[in-house]
Amino acid sequence: MNKTRLFQQKFFRTKYHEALLTMQSMNLLTIPTIKKTSYDAFISQTASSIMLRRGMTSLGKTQGKLVILGSGWAGFKLLKDIDTRHYEVIVVSPRNYFVFTPLLASSSVGTLEFRCVVEPVRRYSPKIQYYQAYADSVDIKKQTIHCTSNLNNKKDKFTIQYDTLVVAVGANSNTFGIPGVGDYALFLKDISDARKIRQRVIECFELASQPNVTKEEIPGLLHFAVVGGGPTGVEFSAELHDFITQDMARLYPDLINLVTMTVYDVAPQILGSFDQSLRDYAIKKFTRKGIQIRTGTLVEAVNERHLVIKDNGNVSYGMLVWATGLTDNPLTRAMGEYIIKDQSAKRLLTDNYFRVLSKDDGMPVNNVYAIGDCASIKDYDLPATAQVANQKAMHLRKSLTRIAKDGGSFENVKPFKFTNLGSMVYIGEQKAMVDLTSTNVKAKERGTLAWIFWRSSYFTMTISLRNKILIPMYWILTWFFGRDVSKF
Amino acid sequence: MNKTRLFQQKFFRTKYHEALLTMQSMNLLTIPTIKKTSYDAFISQTASSIMLRRGMTSLGKTQGKLVILGSGWAGFKLLKDIDTRHYEVIVVSPRNYFVFTPLLASSSVGTLEFRCVVEPVRRYSPKIQYYQAYADSVDIKKQTIHCTSNLNNKKDKFTIQYDTLVVAVGANSNTFGIPGVGDYALFLKDISDARKIRQRVIECFELASQPNVTKEEIPGLLHFAVVGGGPTGVEFSAELHDFITQDMARLYPDLINLVTMTVYDVAPQILGSFDQSLRDYAIKKFTRKGIQIRTGTLVEAVNERHLVIKDNGNVSYGMLVWATGLTDNPLTRAMGEYIIKDQSAKRLLTDNYFRVLSKDDGMPVNNVYAIGDCASIKDYDLPATAQVANQKAMHLRKSLTRIAKDGGSFENVKPFKFTNLGSMVYIGEQKAMVDLTSTNVKAKERGTLAWIFWRSSYFTMTISLRNKILIPMYWILTWFFGRDVSKF
Repeated sequence: MNKTRLFQQKFFRTKYHEALLTMQSMNLLTIPTIKKTSYDAFISQTASSIMLRRGMTSLGKTQGKLVILGSGWAGFKLLKDIDTRHYEVIVVSPRNYFVFTPLLASSSVGTLEFRCVVEPVRRYSPKIQYYQAYADSVDIKKQTIHCTSNLNNKKDKFTIQYDTLVVAVGANSNTFGIPGVGDYALFLKDISDARKIRQRVIECFELASQPNVTKEEIPGLLHFAVVGGGPTGVEFSAELHDFITQDMARLYPDLINLVTMTVYDVAPQILGSFDQSLRDYAIKKFTRKGIQIRTGTLVEAVNERHLVIKDNGNVSYGMLVWATGLTDNPLTRAMGEYIIKDQSAKRLLTDNYFRVLSKDDGMPVNNVYAIGDCASIKDYDLPATAQVANQKAMHLRKSLTRIAKDGGSFENVKPFKFTNLGSMVYIGEQKAMVDLTSTNVKAKERGTLAWIFWRSSYFTMTISLRNKILIPMYWILTWFFGRDVSKF
Repeated sequence: MNKTRLFQQKFFRTKYHEALLTMQSMNLLTIPTIKKTSYDAFISQTASSIMLRRGMTSLGKTQGKLVILGSGWAGFKLLKDIDTRHYEVIVVSPRNYFVFTPLLASSSVGTLEFRCVVEPVRRYSPKIQYYQAYADSVDIKKQTIHCTSNLNNKKDKFTIQYDTLVVAVGANSNTFGIPGVGDYALFLKDISDARKIRQRVIECFELASQPNVTKEEIPGLLHFAVVGGGPTGVEFSAELHDFITQDMARLYPDLINLVTMTVYDVAPQILGSFDQSLRDYAIKKFTRKGIQIRTGTLVEAVNERHLVIKDNGNVSYGMLVWATGLTDNPLTRAMGEYIIKDQSAKRLLTDNYFRVLSKDDGMPVNNVYAIGDCASIKDYDLPATAQVANQKAMHLRKSLTRIAKDGGSFENVKPFKFTNLGSMVYIGEQKAMVDLTSTNVKAKERGTLAWIFWRSSYFTMTISLRNKILIPMYWILTWFFGRDVSKF
């Protein structure tokens, strides 16, 4: 009881709780309206929509066409909240949904279902035009974007015009050019990745159960390797360990003692961004669970069945999940021709207002913004996290509204300042760690209480009411019945 | 009020209600036990399991190895209920789950989620050995089955031994050799089919929203064609119509008036197995909804974008779902070499005890049974439905227990008799039809009351407690929030 109160006080001293409450109140405002409709009811709407499609859209929209590229943390946050009275909004994204990435690891093992962690783009933006496509390149002189449709086998190409452009295309997983990673490793960026992982874990156990498998092959099939000891790799390992011990152990009792799990990282420690005492706690917990941690270890190559470890030879694996860094994606690479990149040469450099900088004169391009993982602010380095992307999108929304209200003037727009809300990581068996030491040196918590905080924070941040119902329900169902192991 | 009572009386006069109550009580008995486990708790279990894997399994199992091929209605029902004290049970099936097919159409448009309509094989049978594989052929002399693993790109092959064999491999969708159907049509047999349909519907709407699509192309993209006017085709059309009018209409208001739906059938009428007055009712409802019915229409060929209709030329389509008849699958084809087929030459002929008949002498093979859609009883033709498969499996379970108790003697085994429990079909907008005229000429109902009966029957028949919670919850969520349109 006393501990709970102490914990509460701790949070009230930080800005974290305040920020959470704000988020919650915002979420409550965005509950979708419930209505049932029929063909007939749409006739009047249809007429106006057809007018919209014929290019009469900008009537009354003082700021013209705002094109948002991407539907991740930055793009989705912006498209959801942008004031469509001032802008005619067009969204281009290869996937027609947003992924709530903090819960993606949970969904990859079935603690939650895939559809609990997505929000469809169209559902939250009836006034927004959406194209399911990749943006290939941008012509900042002509103000056009060349796109390739992500439908129909990606063979259709088209070009769209913009008045204001927001690049929020994110970043790709970085394989660091290590041979075989792209072919044999699984990643954890999208729902399709999570689905592959879920299928592969079950497949490994089924393979090890087949009559023609030899006794020597089984330990290799049941070695689950994770490369990357950051929060993503650690959370995924924790979820996978839960899945294996809580569900697979019951279904494959004769295999469970042959299972091994390893987390590899080239760095000297895992969870490098966390407070030292929390890091030690995580290592202790992982070691006790039997998850091996191999830090300072370089994976030199990957083939279908083995990791090639520097100075240590081949290690068999059944599943390999690659959760290391990020790299540029094709659009940011293409834009690098005339837009300045950051020192890693992977991200678009922007000023404090998120405007990209022209290679011609180093000056900001007034109507092209870049936010999220694909962008970096000059002399103000921030990590590529959902938190940063989210805050940037919120700030840009305000800036764009300000500009519209001021008749296009940039005068009253404020520069961006990041508020570090700390970080959290799940470490398995209903335990997590919360690190707010960036705001207060003593503000850290670990164990079950931190896990409750971890779950309630993400529950609070969940966007739709539908998912606010589904997520706790699946948490309860999983606790009672375990995770489903049907493989499809 | 009066109508409800009349309806109730009607059912009490038939055997249907009684049968349902029995099913319900059976389901209640199969609620899975809830327990949480850890590594350690399995050590003792592991030891005995390893013994099992080394071939010492039949110790104490008087009847030896019972191999069940398939995990559909027949195979799953049998493996779930079989008495493992007498038989060492091995299941071979390419998919590690059972699909509750009556709700598959619902899941194909997102009224329910995919995982609500499956039950994993391993969850309900801890004492059963399972191999995820296709059975390719059976050697009834040597009592062996040659299998190909459905894992690892289907390259592993193995052979297993049986003492008693139950063939319950089902049947494949019949394309009647019409060119292009296999390449371009979608089917509705498995979860993977349902997922493809769900993706394709959304894709059609997204394609029609792309900027480079011409006005002439849109009606073709938004033409949803169903071939087959039986219960599957009709239920799917009804669910699709619900999805389009209730959800897509709201998200794509400018496209909705361009959508068309057609049900094609080569027969002179749809729902041929239903009572005439019910059939007329369904046709009236479909016509009022705007779903075109084209009976007596032969589809001669299919290409990527068109149906070629006999005497009527090409018709563009966006999605084509093929829901006609069934044909043999590779195993039943292979077994036809030495086992007698029925007159269609597609199903294995059996006696009234489900024993297959040898081509050598026309006599039953004593230890090889065939049930479900892959089998047909000599001189006792029954439709290839879930109801028949289910009753056959229940009967076979009893027979096998009887044989075991009688020390292997076949003497007291009873021949199978089918009890027709009638049929139901959902026709959209919360209306269904229930046809029990086979038991009582007046026992039929249609409309909303029938729909409530339709839903409660399938809810009752749902197997796991997990799904008994999930299914009504998704029904409610869909009613409130609509179906999710994220495409992955």
